[in-house]
Amino acid sequence: MTPRHDPCFPGGTPEDTGSRSYEPVRVGRISYMNVAPVYYGLNNGQKPDWMAMTCAPPAALNAMMAAGELDVSPVSSAAYARHQDKWLILPDLSIACFGPVMSVLLVSRHPFAGLAGRKVVLTRESATAAALTRYLLASDGIRPCLTVGRVRRADDLPDDTGAALVIGDAALREPWAARFDHVWDLGAMWRERTGLPFVFALWVVRKSFAEAHPDRVSAVLHQFYRSRSAGAGHLSRILPEAADRLGISPEMCRRYYHRLRYTLDSAQMAGLSAFFRGLYAERIISRPVGLSLFRDPGLQDAPGHERPIASACRRS
Amino acid sequence: MTPRHDPCFPGGTPEDTGSRSYEPVRVGRISYMNVAPVYYGLNNGQKPDWMAMTCAPPAALNAMMAAGELDVSPVSSAAYARHQDKWLILPDLSIACFGPVMSVLLVSRHPFAGLAGRKVVLTRESATAAALTRYLLASDGIRPCLTVGRVRRADDLPDDTGAALVIGDAALREPWAARFDHVWDLGAMWRERTGLPFVFALWVVRKSFAEAHPDRVSAVLHQFYRSRSAGAGHLSRILPEAADRLGISPEMCRRYYHRLRYTLDSAQMAGLSAFFRGLYAERIISRPVGLSLFRDPGLQDAPGHERPIASACRRS
Repeated sequence: MTPRHDPCFPGGTPEDTGSRSYEPVRVGRISYMNVAPVYYGLNNGQKPDWMAMTCAPPAALNAMMAAGELDVSPVSSAAYARHQDKWLILPDLSIACFGPVMSVLLVSRHPFAGLAGRKVVLTRESATAAALTRYLLASDGIRPCLTVGRVRRADDLPDDTGAALVIGDAALREPWAARFDHVWDLGAMWRERTGLPFVFALWVVRKSFAEAHPDRVSAVLHQFYRSRSAGAGHLSRILPEAADRLGISPEMCRRYYHRLRYTLDSAQMAGLSAFFRGLYAERIISRPVGLSLFRDPGLQDAPGHERPIASACRRS
Repeated sequence: MTPRHDPCFPGGTPEDTGSRSYEPVRVGRISYMNVAPVYYGLNNGQKPDWMAMTCAPPAALNAMMAAGELDVSPVSSAAYARHQDKWLILPDLSIACFGPVMSVLLVSRHPFAGLAGRKVVLTRESATAAALTRYLLASDGIRPCLTVGRVRRADDLPDDTGAALVIGDAALREPWAARFDHVWDLGAMWRERTGLPFVFALWVVRKSFAEAHPDRVSAVLHQFYRSRSAGAGHLSRILPEAADRLGISPEMCRRYYHRLRYTLDSAQMAGLSAFFRGLYAERIISRPVGLSLFRDPGLQDAPGHERPIASACRRS
């Protein structure tokens, strides 16, 4: 076995770089269990010394990215829409679902169309789920009275509440269906309407950092892909801890993780575009949103058919 | 931008290694379009000089791996069952489906149960699909008269053929439903019976190579994860070429790729185990099959709860 080197530090380990001794790359990590598979490898021996990890709730990571306190982080899709000029999307990483997601619910005392004019409480914990709720209502022409508040338990909601958006642990743990006539899974509603996946969070890099250090961003990407692959192979180790922290049964926890997707393929990109277009069309956001991706410097452009895939298939 | 180094060669680029100048790692690539997304990055600028790629049909890659002519390659699941003592499975890589796969069909002139005693022709092109067909029949207690032959077009099949297994391009391209009363998608049948994904191919490494060069195998893994992620982000570039080569419409090709999975998560591992158990129970294979995974040297063991995930969530 060769001496221990870090295979993902461009130009070798810090000791090798001589005058090029970099600051660590500052990387965010969502402090919720839903992201555990992506960080599994990084949390279990794969984190190189040149990655400095900060663990915080999603809203805090959004703010730290906006303040330039992190270089790379998951952010909510709604935060990307606000800061698209400063951030680039990292390829093939997201928190997404295709159909029911289990942890983003609209619980209601009335049929969907009956929410017009009624009070709908949006949890303050998620900007993206709140924007999705507003879009689903607005695109059906339903204009409720929207408020923001605390939605953790059914008892949190006053009697005049028509419906409430509940996310995360509270959505998974509380028996909402026992207390409300209608419980809609917003991942399922989105798929029914669009046929597309829904993307709750993206990994982004600050544009200025990516321009200065494309090879370092590429090395971070390597680390995330390998870490996520390690997580996919060790879900059975993640589940007991996750079930315990979420306070749900291991079986429900298993179903939950099988709902989540951490990739960002073309269907998910289409879902993201459709979401941003819908938000702009309903004037929930004030500007159209473009999807600007970080271009991995190791990946050449292959425009059109100039370099057909078939020709790459040869002995070398 | 830093000088160009290869971030995935352990210990630096070959020029840096002084006395440790390795032979290239010999890596296999299936010459079919179904695997194009996994190799997309490697085919488009990401392939380092120390990976030597050999492109061949699946059966040839199985044979080359068995002969020690390749170090790392995709192999059919059936081939892994035969060579489990010599190979280790690479984590999180496979060719799999969960439900219909479109390209593995049993076409029949009779209802499923009516195949007892009738001639069923298995294409010689796929050992795994043939084993799956035999298992699905045997576990229902149906004993047909199995033969092996050419199954490319409906006209290939003599009148005394009760059913035939057809795979790959021929399954996608020919209008089988127009010529046969029954067309079963074996990916869908497998999911209906087991609730599990089906894994057609695995990436493996020769045990002796992995023991001698664990860091090099880890570097190959990095390359595959990054290459697959690039493919996921560029499916729109893969589709026209693939549709053209397969001779199907771009829309059908898009649906086909959305059916395929290239990961190997715990559900897929469970599907693989169930398949091997089934083959052994029906005496289609003569030995039980264990799943031996390559252990990434960068990934520490995390047995039980000794290193809870939560504790890894801190500022560093």
